[in-house]
Amino acid sequence: MDSLKKSFDAIPIAPAAHVVHADTTSPATWRQALDAHPSVPTKTFELIKTLVYKPKTAKTATPVPVVVIARDDTETNSGAIGKKLGLKELRLAPEDLLTEFFALDKNSLSPLALNAETFPKVATVVDSSIASSSSLFAVHALSSSSTVFFSGKDIIAYLRHLETDAVKIQEVDFTNLDSAPAAKPAAKPAPKEKEDAKIEGAVQIAIGVKKEVDFPAWYTNVLIKADMLDYYSVSGCYILKPWSYSIWEEITQWFNAEIKELGVQNSYFPMFVSQKVLEREKDHIEGFSPEVAWVTRAGNSDLEEPIAIRPTSETAMYPYYAKWIKSHRDLPLKLNQWNSVVRWEFKNPQPFLRTREFLWQEGHTAFLTKPEADTEVRQILDLYRRVFEDLLAVPVIPGVKSEKEKFAGGLYTTTVEGFIPTSGRGIQGATSHCLGQNFSRPEMFNIFVEDPNDPTQGKTYVWQNSWGLSTRTIGVMVMVHGDNQGLVLPPRVASVQVVIVPCGLTAKTTEESRAKVNTACEELVKTLKKAGIRAKADLREGYTPGYKFNDWEQKGVPLRLEIGPNDLAKQQTLSVRRDTGAKNPVDLANIGPTVTALLDTIQSDMFSKAKATYDSSIKEITHWDDFVPALDAKNIVAIPWCEVEECEDDIKERSGRASEPQDERAPSAGAKSLCIPFDQSRWAPIVAGQTKCAACGKDAKRWTLYGRSY
Amino acid sequence: MDSLKKSFDAIPIAPAAHVVHADTTSPATWRQALDAHPSVPTKTFELIKTLVYKPKTAKTATPVPVVVIARDDTETNSGAIGKKLGLKELRLAPEDLLTEFFALDKNSLSPLALNAETFPKVATVVDSSIASSSSLFAVHALSSSSTVFFSGKDIIAYLRHLETDAVKIQEVDFTNLDSAPAAKPAAKPAPKEKEDAKIEGAVQIAIGVKKEVDFPAWYTNVLIKADMLDYYSVSGCYILKPWSYSIWEEITQWFNAEIKELGVQNSYFPMFVSQKVLEREKDHIEGFSPEVAWVTRAGNSDLEEPIAIRPTSETAMYPYYAKWIKSHRDLPLKLNQWNSVVRWEFKNPQPFLRTREFLWQEGHTAFLTKPEADTEVRQILDLYRRVFEDLLAVPVIPGVKSEKEKFAGGLYTTTVEGFIPTSGRGIQGATSHCLGQNFSRPEMFNIFVEDPNDPTQGKTYVWQNSWGLSTRTIGVMVMVHGDNQGLVLPPRVASVQVVIVPCGLTAKTTEESRAKVNTACEELVKTLKKAGIRAKADLREGYTPGYKFNDWEQKGVPLRLEIGPNDLAKQQTLSVRRDTGAKNPVDLANIGPTVTALLDTIQSDMFSKAKATYDSSIKEITHWDDFVPALDAKNIVAIPWCEVEECEDDIKERSGRASEPQDERAPSAGAKSLCIPFDQSRWAPIVAGQTKCAACGKDAKRWTLYGRSY
Repeated sequence: MDSLKKSFDAIPIAPAAHVVHADTTSPATWRQALDAHPSVPTKTFELIKTLVYKPKTAKTATPVPVVVIARDDTETNSGAIGKKLGLKELRLAPEDLLTEFFALDKNSLSPLALNAETFPKVATVVDSSIASSSSLFAVHALSSSSTVFFSGKDIIAYLRHLETDAVKIQEVDFTNLDSAPAAKPAAKPAPKEKEDAKIEGAVQIAIGVKKEVDFPAWYTNVLIKADMLDYYSVSGCYILKPWSYSIWEEITQWFNAEIKELGVQNSYFPMFVSQKVLEREKDHIEGFSPEVAWVTRAGNSDLEEPIAIRPTSETAMYPYYAKWIKSHRDLPLKLNQWNSVVRWEFKNPQPFLRTREFLWQEGHTAFLTKPEADTEVRQILDLYRRVFEDLLAVPVIPGVKSEKEKFAGGLYTTTVEGFIPTSGRGIQGATSHCLGQNFSRPEMFNIFVEDPNDPTQGKTYVWQNSWGLSTRTIGVMVMVHGDNQGLVLPPRVASVQVVIVPCGLTAKTTEESRAKVNTACEELVKTLKKAGIRAKADLREGYTPGYKFNDWEQKGVPLRLEIGPNDLAKQQTLSVRRDTGAKNPVDLANIGPTVTALLDTIQSDMFSKAKATYDSSIKEITHWDDFVPALDAKNIVAIPWCEVEECEDDIKERSGRASEPQDERAPSAGAKSLCIPFDQSRWAPIVAGQTKCAACGKDAKRWTLYGRSY
Repeated sequence: MDSLKKSFDAIPIAPAAHVVHADTTSPATWRQALDAHPSVPTKTFELIKTLVYKPKTAKTATPVPVVVIARDDTETNSGAIGKKLGLKELRLAPEDLLTEFFALDKNSLSPLALNAETFPKVATVVDSSIASSSSLFAVHALSSSSTVFFSGKDIIAYLRHLETDAVKIQEVDFTNLDSAPAAKPAAKPAPKEKEDAKIEGAVQIAIGVKKEVDFPAWYTNVLIKADMLDYYSVSGCYILKPWSYSIWEEITQWFNAEIKELGVQNSYFPMFVSQKVLEREKDHIEGFSPEVAWVTRAGNSDLEEPIAIRPTSETAMYPYYAKWIKSHRDLPLKLNQWNSVVRWEFKNPQPFLRTREFLWQEGHTAFLTKPEADTEVRQILDLYRRVFEDLLAVPVIPGVKSEKEKFAGGLYTTTVEGFIPTSGRGIQGATSHCLGQNFSRPEMFNIFVEDPNDPTQGKTYVWQNSWGLSTRTIGVMVMVHGDNQGLVLPPRVASVQVVIVPCGLTAKTTEESRAKVNTACEELVKTLKKAGIRAKADLREGYTPGYKFNDWEQKGVPLRLEIGPNDLAKQQTLSVRRDTGAKNPVDLANIGPTVTALLDTIQSDMFSKAKATYDSSIKEITHWDDFVPALDAKNIVAIPWCEVEECEDDIKERSGRASEPQDERAPSAGAKSLCIPFDQSRWAPIVAGQTKCAACGKDAKRWTLYGRSY
């Protein structure tokens, strides 16, 4: 900040405030960080965006970067800017150019990156509406985690004081800029620009970023704009707002009913685990210890020994299993708990997918025999499959994890694996572990009974399972179904399945007619609720039907019913599907069953569509040469595999190196094994001793899914 | 431990193990601590109890205390011991005698308290079955938080080596001891002895301690033996087992449905709160900071700044309320969350009543106007009243807290106050707070909108409420309804409402008849389930009906149905009510409605009985002289009160000093105001300027409940 201070000292401007916050990686996260910050002086500030373009120049010429400084809401069209400046094919500058010119990454860029040294080397274009605005503007203080606030006038004053006789800023009125492209795109499509991700002409409440172009920003925007989530002042933690929490409630209700049928009982164990208990199982704790959060102080007193917050509850629960299980009559013991666990990840957090605290259920069961444990592992896994497929309309593939990928300390892990088509990556859905006797054996938790079938044999150590499903489910659902209008919710989990919007009311509509339409909407809600449908009428005054359509589309409500005076006259309503946009008139008579059937259709269509995409993205690969190209084309691959751990390490290594990074937010990591599917019948039978591993050429055992993954 | 070591060195005995654990205050907590301890060498150890009696002696004589060392399960009858030793009126020795003789409190006493110095001064009586037992025995190592394990032989060897020519131990076979009292009780009843709390002849699974005699031990035993709860390796934290968690599930389901009707939505905020946010409200944080648990480390890294675990979520949530509430259209905002909070109390923990982590719901709402907020405060309070009265059959009195007792940082607090007849203490049930504008004002969270009714007025700061109901509810229910057979569950919250036990099957019963009875039990379960009743048949082999009766009585199942061959012949079943023990035959025809009605009767009878007791325990007091005696007689009092804080301080002071301690586990603390009941009509109207405060004589304002409390 010293260099900043010096700049301000040179001219009579001073920031209205300076705040330090979490790292920000997009306008959305930046705004969230500031909105959450208590020291931000106003609610109504605007963000300043700073974009750097590189024009196409002769190879021998030194390019002059174009720095565009604009209000975040201003549509800045690179074609129009190029035309205005007489430059060809402006492209967003690569990261290394930013480093070279400004020693900053793109998330830290701001007008303050321009100083006496850099300003003369670039062309500076300034959004002319900044100067005249009465807004307070947020500007990165040479860091993505630090922001200063200036008036528009001060920003312009700062830039003007850098001007020389030779180099001036150019103020541009972007609203009047000719947006025709300055030049035709090259025959070979150039890499998409980030700026293209902005959806042209999108109204204020729309998502604003295209899913296919900037997937991470799209994901964040959908979550925020659909009111699913908000960022929180503790990094890596998020607020689950009612719109997403209600989905979790649907999942918990369904799953609770199912596991109770299996004889599982709910309970609650404390969130704290003593250090000694936590560290009992060596392999297990090795898997978790780098992420354990420790309480060391209460009030003003230091605790005698630090106490962990559970990252999972095996070691917290099993000392009590040892106590409670005294005889084979106490078996099976089947407990579940709904709670939150803490894994203090230092990797980039992602809402729902990787968060430091998350909600889940964890089931912990103990059996007399392995076959009983094996059976339950698969029963639970099938419930997980149904949560994804039947509730969330998200296809998954059930299978077993490789030795390398199994649960730390367990015997084997089964999983349902999902797929995110937009990124071409696999994603673990939920896992059901057989722990074997690893936790029950005498040197561990010593959980045994006398074997009733063979009393001469003495102690039999119990067979244990643990299984968990988390709020990650919600993130996967958003990524799979969402589109450029926002969230798309499967009817089974939508807290509002049908929204009814009154339409066709104009200034000329009589009060009577208006009242009639509103009443009809309310009546329709009642009718649908009686039919067991979660319906809502949007009778907000002062909003156009178009605004309401956008609002509910963004929030993903599966079905919209429009009712106007004409519809009423015909005793019908217009139905609009969120998933397909299909519009159809529906008779008001018998509407309960009609809408119920329509919601069922939407649910199954959403699943079928996602399933077709998943299926077509699994490439059967038998030659290594085809492996990485298939991944690069956003597929996962099925290979005949030897199931040797070294081979898996090798695959990761080779598939990581082989391709270039496409996007700094989703680097092309190496492929991991996703699962060995239980259903091997999709592929040609493996012939023992004949079918070879596609990676190493040794004898293959089973078809295995590999992919880049979350 | 050095003095211990020396003792062992003198004779050839050595402990089998030595473990350190949480402080223990009763045999039940001691056993729990040991059961939970990983280093205890066996599951089948027994506890040694060490009781010290003081015989009645002439005032001039020095009493010789009698030390009784016995297996915890051995019935030691003080009358019989006195008779055997020729001593009159043995009474459990007061704490100061223990300190004088052994420099130990009663929870640390053990055979090891006897040494070369103390042994000659006392008479030592030893349970003769110790020497012959093959059990391993747990013995306190001169501390209530430290235990060593010895064989019975070693314990006797230890005591024998202390013997002198003059002083020997006396081995007594308690099973053959004449239990007739040695002497008639004195005319004026002496204070009850602790040992009397043991219920004579109780079978192994019964509660074993009388509710009226040793209430704290009774409470712990009921919770453990009814399978509600287990102790946990982190002090102050408890495991909620399915039998209690299912009650919480009933409460959450009912309450969720009710608040959703009020437009409240569920959400989830992170458990972590940054230090800065937590400490924003001064009064508020002063109330909580001594109990806040701090996370300072994650994995091996120290955090840059410590992060608190929420003790409650006002300060965590309200920065976001400031962000989300932009216009009056965003009001009211009504969010609730079901979570756990942590208050690291250093006072003695008590299961459900005072625990370091507890489950609750916390509602946080914001309104445009005070009247709206006031209305909701009372709506929610009435839901809390219904949780207690309608679900748990526990009467409560709704009212407002005094200024001294209100929520830290709030405007006013309403409460439903319960009463525990056995201890004569009040207990806060749940609270609904109006926070006023204390958290919304500009120097706090700055939550405002433009007033739509008066745009010229500018900013209007929102009116906020917060309200919470915790698992404490369950503890209150146990204390109010439980009896000497164990738990008594109100039907509305019992996870098993009816248990069906096959009876009248003897060795002579034919296989066919036996099968017929079992089938009839299963059929009956189906019939009852169809009628919406939670029923279960106990068809366990190898247990007598008597054992099963005890088992389910202990667990509090509201209704038992017995079916034997004779019942079947008559097409009837015998119903036995848990609350009254009343037995009645019930026709199997139409049994669904009959049992439903019977459960309703049980529910309302339980409430009526508890209500009558509560009502009769509220003493109307207008003269200070009657105040403390009423409390000492296990009542709470209603007084005309001035509502001045200094007067409340004074009442606490005066009522604390005024009576002697009766029981070291429930010292006679001073009385606090419990609430100012909304319903003042119970008492004579207060006449302004005429009715005087019963405590200070100034003008009284309203009738106020005062009492000792939890």
